[in-house]
Amino acid sequence: MTVVIVGAGPGDPGLITVRGLELVEAAEVLVYDRLVSAELVAKACDAELVARDELTQRQVNDVLVREGRRGRAVVRLKGGDPFVFGRGGEEAAALAAAGVAFEVVPGLSTLTAVPALAGIPLTHRGTSAQVTVVTGTAGDGGDLDYAHLAVTPGTLVIFMGLRRLESIARNLISSGRSAAEPAAAISKVSLPGERVVVATLGSIAAAAARLESPAVVIVGAVAALGLVDSARELQRAAPTRVASVANRPS
Amino acid sequence: MTVVIVGAGPGDPGLITVRGLELVEAAEVLVYDRLVSAELVAKACDAELVARDELTQRQVNDVLVREGRRGRAVVRLKGGDPFVFGRGGEEAAALAAAGVAFEVVPGLSTLTAVPALAGIPLTHRGTSAQVTVVTGTAGDGGDLDYAHLAVTPGTLVIFMGLRRLESIARNLISSGRSAAEPAAAISKVSLPGERVVVATLGSIAAAAARLESPAVVIVGAVAALGLVDSARELQRAAPTRVASVANRPS
Repeated sequence: MTVVIVGAGPGDPGLITVRGLELVEAAEVLVYDRLVSAELVAKACDAELVARDELTQRQVNDVLVREGRRGRAVVRLKGGDPFVFGRGGEEAAALAAAGVAFEVVPGLSTLTAVPALAGIPLTHRGTSAQVTVVTGTAGDGGDLDYAHLAVTPGTLVIFMGLRRLESIARNLISSGRSAAEPAAAISKVSLPGERVVVATLGSIAAAAARLESPAVVIVGAVAALGLVDSARELQRAAPTRVASVANRPS
Repeated sequence: MTVVIVGAGPGDPGLITVRGLELVEAAEVLVYDRLVSAELVAKACDAELVARDELTQRQVNDVLVREGRRGRAVVRLKGGDPFVFGRGGEEAAALAAAGVAFEVVPGLSTLTAVPALAGIPLTHRGTSAQVTVVTGTAGDGGDLDYAHLAVTPGTLVIFMGLRRLESIARNLISSGRSAAEPAAAISKVSLPGERVVVATLGSIAAAAARLESPAVVIVGAVAALGLVDSARELQRAAPTRVASVANRPS
Protein backbone atom coordinates (compact mmCIF):
# COMPACT_ATOMS: atom_id res chain seq x y z
CA MET A 1 0.00 0.00 0.00
CA THR A 2 1.15 3.51 -0.73
CA VAL A 3 -1.63 6.07 -1.12
CA VAL A 4 -5.18 5.20 -0.09
CA ILE A 5 -8.09 7.57 -0.50
CA VAL A 6 -10.47 6.66 2.33
CA GLY A 7 -14.04 7.85 2.86
CA ALA A 8 -14.72 8.68 6.51
CA GLY A 9 -18.51 8.64 6.21
CA PRO A 10 -20.97 11.32 7.28
CA GLY A 11 -19.41 12.27 10.62
CA ASP A 12 -19.93 9.72 13.35
CA PRO A 13 -16.63 7.85 13.71
CA GLY A 14 -18.52 4.55 14.03
CA LEU A 15 -19.65 4.95 10.42
CA ILE A 16 -16.24 4.55 8.81
CA THR A 17 -15.68 1.08 7.33
CA VAL A 18 -13.75 -1.58 9.21
CA ARG A 19 -11.10 -1.50 6.48
CA GLY A 20 -10.93 2.29 6.50
CA LEU A 21 -10.31 2.41 10.25
CA GLU A 22 -7.52 -0.14 9.95
CA LEU A 23 -5.80 1.96 7.32
CA VAL A 24 -6.10 5.12 9.42
CA GLU A 25 -4.58 3.33 12.39
CA ALA A 26 -1.64 2.16 10.26
CA ALA A 27 -1.05 5.45 8.45
CA GLU A 28 2.36 7.14 8.39
CA VAL A 29 0.92 10.28 6.79
CA LEU A 30 -2.71 11.35 7.28
CA VAL A 31 -4.16 14.14 5.13
CA TYR A 32 -7.61 14.89 6.57
CA ASP A 33 -10.57 17.13 5.81
CA ARG A 34 -11.95 19.68 8.25
CA LEU A 35 -15.26 17.80 8.54
CA VAL A 36 -13.62 14.52 9.59
CA SER A 37 -14.14 13.87 13.30
CA ALA A 38 -11.27 14.51 15.69
CA GLU A 39 -11.77 11.05 17.14
CA LEU A 40 -10.94 9.45 13.82
CA VAL A 41 -7.89 11.64 13.28
CA ALA A 42 -6.71 10.63 16.77
CA LYS A 43 -6.75 6.99 15.65
CA ALA A 44 -3.73 7.72 13.45
CA CYS A 45 -1.45 7.51 16.47
CA ASP A 46 1.89 7.44 14.69
CA ALA A 47 1.08 9.50 11.63
CA GLU A 48 2.32 12.83 10.45
CA LEU A 49 -0.90 14.89 10.35
CA VAL A 50 -1.67 17.22 7.45
CA ALA A 51 -4.79 19.41 7.69
CA ARG A 52 -6.30 19.71 4.24
CA ASP A 53 -7.94 23.08 4.81
CA GLU A 54 -4.59 24.80 5.10
CA LEU A 55 -3.69 23.73 1.57
CA THR A 56 -4.92 24.36 -1.95
CA GLN A 57 -6.16 21.38 -3.96
CA ARG A 58 -2.94 21.51 -5.96
CA GLN A 59 -0.88 21.35 -2.79
CA VAL A 60 -2.91 18.38 -1.54
CA ASN A 61 -2.24 16.56 -4.80
CA ASP A 62 1.47 17.35 -4.48
CA VAL A 63 1.69 15.99 -0.94
CA LEU A 64 -0.03 12.75 -1.97
CA VAL A 65 2.27 12.28 -4.97
CA ARG A 66 5.45 13.16 -3.07
CA GLU A 67 4.77 10.98 -0.03
CA GLY A 68 3.42 8.18 -2.20
CA ARG A 69 6.66 8.16 -4.20
CA ARG A 70 8.59 7.85 -0.98
CA GLY A 71 6.63 4.67 -0.31
CA ARG A 72 5.08 5.90 2.91
CA ALA A 73 1.68 4.65 4.03
CA VAL A 74 -0.38 7.68 3.06
CA VAL A 75 -4.06 7.94 3.92
CA ARG A 76 -6.18 10.70 2.42
CA LEU A 77 -9.19 10.78 4.75
CA LYS A 78 -12.19 12.56 3.27
CA GLY A 79 -15.66 13.24 4.64
CA GLY A 80 -18.49 11.17 3.17
CA ASP A 81 -17.51 9.20 0.10
CA PRO A 82 -14.50 10.35 -1.95
CA PHE A 83 -16.26 9.97 -5.28
CA VAL A 84 -19.75 11.39 -4.59
CA PHE A 85 -19.49 15.15 -4.69
CA GLY A 86 -16.11 14.57 -3.02
CA ARG A 87 -13.15 15.49 -5.16
CA GLY A 88 -11.60 12.08 -4.95
CA GLY A 89 -11.62 11.92 -8.71
CA GLU A 90 -9.24 14.85 -8.99
CA GLU A 91 -6.82 13.41 -6.47
CA ALA A 92 -6.98 9.96 -8.05
CA ALA A 93 -6.32 11.49 -11.45
CA ALA A 94 -3.29 13.37 -10.11
CA LEU A 95 -1.87 10.17 -8.62
CA ALA A 96 -2.53 8.23 -11.81
CA ALA A 97 -0.88 10.92 -13.92
CA ALA A 98 2.18 10.81 -11.66
CA GLY A 99 2.35 7.02 -11.85
CA VAL A 100 1.78 6.57 -8.13
CA ALA A 101 -0.17 3.44 -7.17
CA PHE A 102 -3.27 4.21 -5.20
CA GLU A 103 -6.41 2.57 -3.97
CA VAL A 104 -9.79 3.81 -2.85
CA VAL A 105 -11.75 2.59 0.15
CA PRO A 106 -15.23 4.02 -0.25
CA GLY A 107 -17.09 5.68 2.59
CA LEU A 108 -20.74 6.10 3.47
CA SER A 109 -21.92 8.91 1.27
CA THR A 110 -24.18 11.51 2.81
CA LEU A 111 -26.39 10.65 -0.14
CA THR A 112 -27.25 7.28 1.35
CA ALA A 113 -26.50 7.82 5.04
CA VAL A 114 -28.71 10.85 5.54
CA PRO A 115 -31.92 9.25 4.34
CA ALA A 116 -31.26 5.99 6.19
CA LEU A 117 -30.49 7.70 9.48
CA ALA A 118 -33.43 10.05 9.17
CA GLY A 119 -35.85 7.26 8.32
CA ILE A 120 -36.43 8.42 4.75
CA PRO A 121 -35.79 5.80 2.06
CA LEU A 122 -34.50 7.17 -1.25
CA THR A 123 -36.59 4.62 -3.09
CA HIS A 124 -39.67 2.80 -1.91
CA ARG A 125 -41.71 0.21 -3.72
CA GLY A 126 -44.73 1.88 -5.30
CA THR A 127 -43.58 5.37 -4.31
CA SER A 128 -40.25 6.09 -5.98
CA ALA A 129 -38.06 4.04 -8.31
CA GLN A 130 -35.64 6.79 -9.38
CA VAL A 131 -33.25 9.06 -7.52
CA THR A 132 -31.75 12.25 -8.92
CA VAL A 133 -28.92 13.99 -7.11
CA VAL A 134 -27.80 17.57 -7.72
CA THR A 135 -25.81 20.18 -5.84
CA GLY A 136 -27.34 23.44 -4.69
CA THR A 137 -24.29 25.18 -6.03
CA ALA A 138 -23.80 23.70 -9.48
CA GLY A 139 -20.31 22.33 -10.01
CA ASP A 140 -19.64 24.32 -13.13
CA GLY A 141 -20.86 27.60 -11.70
CA GLY A 142 -24.04 27.42 -13.75
CA ASP A 143 -27.49 27.03 -12.32
CA LEU A 144 -29.79 24.05 -11.94
CA ASP A 145 -31.93 22.97 -14.91
CA TYR A 146 -35.26 23.66 -13.24
CA ALA A 147 -37.37 22.93 -16.31
CA HIS A 148 -35.86 19.46 -16.43
CA LEU A 149 -36.02 18.88 -12.67
CA ALA A 150 -39.68 19.89 -12.65
CA VAL A 151 -40.59 16.85 -14.72
CA THR A 152 -38.06 14.42 -13.26
CA PRO A 153 -39.84 11.47 -11.62
CA GLY A 154 -38.94 9.93 -8.26
CA THR A 155 -36.85 11.39 -5.47
CA LEU A 156 -34.79 14.55 -5.79
CA VAL A 157 -31.79 14.95 -3.48
CA ILE A 158 -30.10 18.34 -3.19
CA PHE A 159 -26.62 18.51 -1.69
CA MET A 160 -25.31 21.76 -0.25
CA GLY A 161 -28.56 23.54 -0.98
CA LEU A 162 -29.43 24.93 2.43
CA ARG A 163 -28.39 28.53 1.84
CA ARG A 164 -30.19 28.77 -1.46
CA LEU A 165 -33.17 26.66 -0.41
CA GLU A 166 -35.76 29.43 -0.69
CA SER A 167 -34.64 30.19 -4.24
CA ILE A 168 -34.37 26.52 -5.23
CA ALA A 169 -37.85 25.67 -3.90
CA ARG A 170 -39.39 28.73 -5.55
CA ASN A 171 -37.82 27.87 -8.90
CA LEU A 172 -38.95 24.24 -8.71
CA ILE A 173 -42.52 25.36 -8.01
CA SER A 174 -42.59 28.03 -10.69
CA SER A 175 -41.26 25.43 -13.15
CA GLY A 176 -44.15 23.13 -12.37
CA ARG A 177 -43.56 21.05 -9.25
CA SER A 178 -46.35 21.10 -6.69
CA ALA A 179 -45.91 23.32 -3.62
CA ALA A 180 -47.69 20.57 -1.66
CA GLU A 181 -45.08 17.95 -2.51
CA PRO A 182 -43.36 16.54 0.60
CA ALA A 183 -39.84 17.77 1.35
CA ALA A 184 -37.37 17.20 4.15
CA ALA A 185 -34.14 18.84 5.26
CA ILE A 186 -31.58 17.00 7.36
CA SER A 187 -28.60 18.74 8.92
CA LYS A 188 -25.51 17.35 10.66
CA VAL A 189 -26.53 13.77 10.06
CA SER A 190 -25.09 11.24 12.52
CA LEU A 191 -23.61 14.04 14.63
CA PRO A 192 -24.82 15.25 18.03
CA GLY A 193 -26.61 18.27 16.55
CA GLU A 194 -28.52 16.26 13.94
CA ARG A 195 -31.92 17.71 13.03
CA VAL A 196 -34.63 16.64 10.62
CA VAL A 197 -37.40 18.92 9.36
CA VAL A 198 -40.29 17.61 7.28
CA ALA A 199 -42.56 20.02 5.42
CA THR A 200 -43.73 20.67 1.88
CA LEU A 201 -41.80 22.08 -1.02
CA GLY A 202 -43.68 25.35 -0.47
CA SER A 203 -42.79 25.58 3.21
CA ILE A 204 -39.46 23.77 3.52
CA ALA A 205 -37.31 26.91 3.24
CA ALA A 206 -39.07 28.57 6.18
CA ALA A 207 -39.17 25.33 8.17
CA ALA A 208 -35.45 24.75 7.67
CA ALA A 209 -34.38 28.34 8.24
CA ARG A 210 -32.61 27.58 11.50
CA LEU A 211 -30.78 24.46 10.39
CA GLU A 212 -27.02 24.52 10.14
CA SER A 213 -24.79 23.21 7.36
CA PRO A 214 -23.90 20.64 6.24
CA ALA A 215 -27.41 19.67 5.23
CA VAL A 216 -29.16 17.75 2.52
CA VAL A 217 -32.66 18.34 1.17
CA ILE A 218 -34.96 15.62 -0.11
CA VAL A 219 -37.96 16.40 -2.32
CA GLY A 220 -40.56 13.77 -3.15
CA ALA A 221 -43.18 11.42 -1.80
CA VAL A 222 -40.66 9.40 0.23
CA ALA A 223 -40.17 12.40 2.53
CA ALA A 224 -43.71 11.84 3.85
CA LEU A 225 -43.50 8.12 4.49
CA GLY A 226 -43.82 8.67 8.20
CA LEU A 227 -40.66 6.88 9.24
CA VAL A 228 -39.06 10.05 10.50
CA ASP A 229 -41.10 10.09 13.71
CA SER A 230 -40.05 6.55 14.41
CA ALA A 231 -36.44 7.46 13.90
CA ARG A 232 -36.84 10.47 16.19
CA GLU A 233 -38.45 8.36 18.89
CA LEU A 234 -35.63 5.95 18.56
CA GLN A 235 -33.10 8.70 18.96
CA ARG A 236 -34.76 9.88 22.15
CA ALA A 237 -34.88 6.33 23.49
CA ALA A 238 -31.30 5.54 22.54
CA PRO A 239 -29.22 8.69 22.03
CA THR A 240 -26.09 6.65 21.33
CA ARG A 241 -27.81 4.76 18.55
CA VAL A 242 -24.69 5.20 16.48
CA ALA A 243 -22.08 5.15 19.16
CA SER A 244 -18.76 6.78 18.58
CA VAL A 245 -15.61 4.73 18.33
CA ALA A 246 -14.05 6.50 21.25
CA ASN A 247 -16.99 6.26 23.61
CA ARG A 248 -17.97 2.72 22.92
CA PRO A 249 -17.73 0.27 25.80
CA SER A 250 -15.24 -2.47 25.04
CA MET B 1 -31.25 -1.82 21.32
CA THR B 2 -33.86 -4.13 19.99
CA VAL B 3 -34.08 -4.30 16.20
CA VAL B 4 -31.34 -2.80 14.06
CA ILE B 5 -31.41 -2.80 10.28
CA VAL B 6 -27.75 -2.90 9.25
CA GLY B 7 -26.28 -2.42 5.79
CA ALA B 8 -23.50 -4.92 5.08
CA GLY B 9 -22.04 -3.03 2.13
CA PRO B 10 -21.30 -4.34 -1.36
CA GLY B 11 -19.81 -7.71 -0.42
CA ASP B 12 -16.32 -7.52 1.01
CA PRO B 13 -16.67 -7.99 4.78
CA GLY B 14 -14.13 -5.20 5.37
CA LEU B 15 -16.61 -2.73 3.91
CA ILE B 16 -19.21 -2.98 6.66
CA THR B 17 -19.08 -0.07 9.11
CA VAL B 18 -17.28 -0.34 12.44
CA ARG B 19 -20.62 0.12 14.21
CA GLY B 20 -22.35 -2.43 11.99
CA LEU B 21 -19.76 -5.11 12.74
CA GLU B 22 -20.09 -4.50 16.48
CA LEU B 23 -23.84 -4.99 16.27
CA VAL B 24 -23.47 -8.21 14.27
CA GLU B 25 -21.02 -9.54 16.84
CA ALA B 26 -23.47 -8.77 19.67
CA ALA B 27 -26.60 -10.07 17.91
CA GLU B 28 -28.89 -12.63 19.53
CA VAL B 29 -30.90 -13.05 16.31
CA LEU B 30 -29.38 -12.44 12.86
CA VAL B 31 -31.65 -12.28 9.80
CA TYR B 32 -29.34 -12.13 6.79
CA ASP B 33 -29.60 -11.80 3.02
CA ARG B 34 -28.20 -14.36 0.61
CA LEU B 35 -25.68 -11.85 -0.78
CA VAL B 36 -24.14 -11.10 2.62
CA SER B 37 -20.73 -12.75 2.95
CA ALA B 38 -20.43 -15.91 5.02
CA GLU B 39 -17.54 -14.33 6.90
CA LEU B 40 -19.81 -11.61 8.23
CA VAL B 41 -22.54 -14.05 9.20
CA ALA B 42 -19.89 -16.06 11.07
CA LYS B 43 -19.15 -12.99 13.19
CA ALA B 44 -22.52 -13.43 14.88
CA CYS B 45 -21.08 -16.17 17.05
CA ASP B 46 -23.89 -16.53 19.54
CA ALA B 47 -26.84 -15.61 17.35
CA GLU B 48 -29.77 -17.61 16.15
CA LEU B 49 -29.34 -17.43 12.36
CA VAL B 50 -32.29 -16.83 10.06
CA ALA B 51 -31.69 -17.00 6.29
CA ARG B 52 -33.85 -14.39 4.62
CA ASP B 53 -34.17 -16.22 1.30
CA GLU B 54 -36.19 -19.01 2.86
CA LEU B 55 -38.86 -16.53 3.92
CA THR B 56 -41.36 -14.22 2.25
CA GLN B 57 -41.06 -10.49 2.94
CA ARG B 58 -44.10 -10.76 5.20
CA GLN B 59 -42.46 -13.54 7.19
CA VAL B 60 -39.28 -11.49 7.55
CA ASN B 61 -41.33 -8.57 8.90
CA ASP B 62 -43.07 -10.93 11.33
CA VAL B 63 -39.79 -12.33 12.65
CA LEU B 64 -38.40 -8.83 13.24
CA VAL B 65 -41.56 -7.68 15.04
CA ARG B 66 -41.87 -10.83 17.16
CA GLU B 67 -38.23 -10.98 18.25
CA GLY B 68 -38.10 -7.23 18.73
CA ARG B 69 -41.09 -7.41 21.07
CA ARG B 70 -39.28 -10.07 23.07
CA GLY B 71 -36.49 -7.55 23.59
CA ARG B 72 -33.82 -9.65 21.93
CA ALA B 73 -30.88 -8.02 20.13
CA VAL B 74 -32.09 -8.48 16.56
CA VAL B 75 -29.90 -7.54 13.60
CA ARG B 76 -31.36 -7.49 10.10
CA LEU B 77 -28.23 -7.63 7.93
CA LYS B 78 -28.84 -6.53 4.35
CA GLY B 79 -26.53 -6.31 1.35
CA GLY B 80 -25.53 -2.80 0.29
CA ASP B 81 -27.50 -0.07 1.99
CA PRO B 82 -30.94 -0.88 3.42
CA PHE B 83 -32.59 2.21 1.98
CA VAL B 84 -31.14 2.42 -1.54
CA PHE B 85 -33.01 -0.07 -3.69
CA GLY B 86 -32.93 -2.25 -0.56
CA ARG B 87 -36.29 -2.83 1.00
CA GLY B 88 -35.33 -1.45 4.35
CA GLY B 89 -38.16 1.01 4.08
CA GLU B 90 -40.75 -1.76 4.10
CA GLU B 91 -39.21 -3.46 7.10
CA ALA B 92 -38.84 -0.19 8.98
CA ALA B 93 -42.47 0.63 8.23
CA ALA B 94 -43.59 -2.75 9.54
CA LEU B 95 -41.65 -2.22 12.78
CA ALA B 96 -42.99 1.30 13.17
CA ALA B 97 -46.57 0.12 12.59
CA ALA B 98 -46.12 -2.55 15.27
CA GLY B 99 -44.65 -0.04 17.72
CA VAL B 100 -41.29 -1.80 17.91
CA ALA B 101 -38.30 0.50 18.41
CA PHE B 102 -35.71 0.16 15.69
CA GLU B 103 -32.65 1.87 14.36
CA VAL B 104 -30.83 1.85 11.06
CA VAL B 105 -27.08 1.67 10.57
CA PRO B 106 -26.49 2.50 6.94
CA GLY B 107 -24.18 0.51 4.73
CA LEU B 108 -22.07 1.30 1.71
CA SER B 109 -24.50 1.36 -1.17
CA THR B 110 -23.46 -0.29 -4.39
CA LEU B 111 -24.39 3.08 -5.85
CA THR B 112 -21.36 4.72 -4.29
CA ALA B 113 -19.06 1.75 -3.71
CA VAL B 114 -19.04 0.46 -7.26
CA PRO B 115 -17.83 3.66 -8.88
CA ALA B 116 -15.25 4.33 -6.17
CA LEU B 117 -13.77 0.85 -6.33
CA ALA B 118 -13.76 0.82 -10.12
CA GLY B 119 -12.11 4.23 -10.34
CA ILE B 120 -15.15 5.95 -11.85
CA PRO B 121 -16.39 9.01 -9.97
CA LEU B 122 -20.14 9.62 -10.11
CA THR B 123 -19.50 13.33 -10.35
CA HIS B 124 -16.41 15.13 -11.53
CA ARG B 125 -15.77 18.84 -11.65
CA GLY B 126 -16.43 20.07 -15.15
CA THR B 127 -17.69 16.70 -16.36
CA SER B 128 -20.79 15.79 -14.37
CA ALA B 129 -22.66 17.58 -11.60
CA GLN B 130 -25.79 15.40 -11.50
CA VAL B 131 -26.40 11.72 -10.87
CA THR B 132 -29.57 9.86 -11.81
CA VAL B 133 -30.19 6.36 -10.52
CA VAL B 134 -32.75 3.93 -11.91
CA THR B 135 -33.33 0.19 -11.80
CA GLY B 136 -33.21 -1.97 -14.91
CA THR B 137 -36.38 -3.61 -13.72
CA ALA B 138 -38.64 -0.76 -12.72
CA GLY B 139 -39.99 -1.09 -9.20
CA ASP B 140 -43.60 -0.72 -10.17
CA GLY B 141 -43.45 -3.19 -13.04
CA GLY B 142 -43.52 -0.39 -15.60
CA ASP B 143 -40.68 0.53 -17.91
CA LEU B 144 -38.03 3.23 -17.86
CA ASP B 145 -38.91 6.70 -19.13
CA TYR B 146 -36.44 6.69 -22.01
CA ALA B 147 -37.56 10.01 -23.48
CA HIS B 148 -36.78 11.67 -20.16
CA LEU B 149 -33.53 9.77 -19.58
CA ALA B 150 -32.36 10.71 -23.08
CA VAL B 151 -32.20 14.38 -22.09
CA THR B 152 -31.12 13.93 -18.47
CA PRO B 153 -27.75 15.61 -17.90
CA GLY B 154 -24.87 14.13 -15.94
CA THR B 155 -24.24 10.54 -14.95
CA LEU B 156 -26.82 7.77 -15.33
CA VAL B 157 -26.51 4.74 -13.02
CA ILE B 158 -28.55 1.63 -13.76
CA PHE B 159 -29.01 -0.95 -11.01
CA MET B 160 -29.89 -4.54 -11.86
CA GLY B 161 -29.82 -3.78 -15.58
CA LEU B 162 -27.39 -6.44 -16.80
CA ARG B 163 -29.90 -8.85 -18.27
CA ARG B 164 -31.79 -6.15 -20.13
CA LEU B 165 -28.71 -4.14 -21.05
CA GLU B 166 -29.02 -4.65 -24.81
CA SER B 167 -32.60 -3.42 -24.73
CA ILE B 168 -31.87 -0.54 -22.34
CA ALA B 169 -28.92 0.72 -24.42
CA ARG B 170 -30.87 0.44 -27.66
CA ASN B 171 -33.80 2.38 -26.21
CA LEU B 172 -31.54 5.12 -24.82
CA ILE B 173 -29.90 5.53 -28.23
CA SER B 174 -33.16 5.50 -30.19
CA SER B 175 -34.49 8.12 -27.77
CA GLY B 176 -31.58 10.40 -28.54
CA ARG B 177 -28.49 9.56 -26.50
CA SER B 178 -25.29 9.17 -28.48
CA ALA B 179 -24.07 5.63 -29.20
CA ALA B 180 -20.55 7.00 -28.74
CA GLU B 181 -21.20 8.05 -25.14
CA PRO B 182 -18.91 6.28 -22.65
CA ALA B 183 -20.43 3.47 -20.61
CA ALA B 184 -19.09 1.00 -18.06
CA ALA B 185 -20.39 -2.16 -16.46
CA ILE B 186 -19.08 -3.42 -13.14
CA SER B 187 -19.97 -6.82 -11.72
CA LYS B 188 -19.34 -8.37 -8.30
CA VAL B 189 -17.77 -5.21 -6.95
CA SER B 190 -15.38 -5.73 -4.03
CA LEU B 191 -15.64 -9.51 -4.41
CA PRO B 192 -12.98 -11.89 -5.79
CA GLY B 193 -14.68 -12.15 -9.19
CA GLU B 194 -14.99 -8.37 -9.67
CA ARG B 195 -14.84 -7.25 -13.30
CA VAL B 196 -15.02 -3.86 -14.98
CA VAL B 197 -15.79 -3.34 -18.65
CA VAL B 198 -15.53 0.09 -20.29
CA ALA B 199 -17.05 0.67 -23.73
CA THR B 200 -19.57 2.97 -25.36
CA LEU B 201 -23.33 3.01 -24.99
CA GLY B 202 -23.52 1.38 -28.42
CA SER B 203 -21.15 -1.45 -27.56
CA ILE B 204 -21.56 -1.95 -23.81
CA ALA B 205 -24.13 -4.75 -24.07
CA ALA B 206 -21.82 -6.88 -26.21
CA ALA B 207 -18.78 -5.96 -24.10
CA ALA B 208 -20.56 -6.92 -20.90
CA ALA B 209 -22.20 -10.06 -22.24
CA ARG B 210 -20.10 -12.38 -20.08
CA LEU B 211 -20.39 -10.45 -16.82
CA GLU B 212 -22.29 -12.01 -13.96
CA SER B 213 -24.86 -10.42 -11.65
CA PRO B 214 -24.98 -8.45 -9.48
CA ALA B 215 -23.77 -5.67 -11.70
CA VAL B 216 -24.26 -1.95 -12.15
CA VAL B 217 -24.02 0.05 -15.37
CA ILE B 218 -22.77 3.63 -15.61
CA VAL B 219 -23.51 5.82 -18.63
CA GLY B 220 -21.85 9.19 -19.08
CA ALA B 221 -18.59 11.02 -19.56
CA VAL B 222 -17.22 9.97 -16.15
CA ALA B 223 -16.97 6.37 -17.42
CA ALA B 224 -14.15 7.48 -19.72
CA LEU B 225 -12.08 9.40 -17.18
CA GLY B 226 -9.29 6.87 -17.44
CA LEU B 227 -9.07 6.00 -13.78
CA VAL B 228 -10.20 2.45 -14.39
CA ASP B 229 -6.83 1.33 -15.70
CA SER B 230 -5.16 2.74 -12.63
CA ALA B 231 -7.57 0.88 -10.43
CA ARG B 232 -6.93 -2.32 -12.37
CA GLU B 233 -3.17 -1.91 -12.07
CA LEU B 234 -3.61 -1.38 -8.39
CA GLN B 235 -5.64 -4.54 -8.11
CA ARG B 236 -2.92 -6.54 -9.80
CA ALA B 237 -0.28 -5.01 -7.59
CA ALA B 238 -2.27 -5.44 -4.40
CA PRO B 239 -4.95 -8.10 -4.76
CA THR B 240 -5.94 -7.74 -1.11
CA ARG B 241 -6.56 -4.03 -1.59
CA VAL B 242 -9.76 -4.40 0.39
CA ALA B 243 -8.78 -7.16 2.73
CA SER B 244 -11.43 -9.35 4.25
CA VAL B 245 -12.15 -9.29 7.94
CA ALA B 246 -11.28 -12.94 8.32
CA ASN B 247 -7.95 -12.85 6.50
CA ARG B 248 -6.60 -9.68 7.95
CA PRO B 249 -3.42 -9.91 10.02
CA SER B 250 -4.04 -8.76 13.57
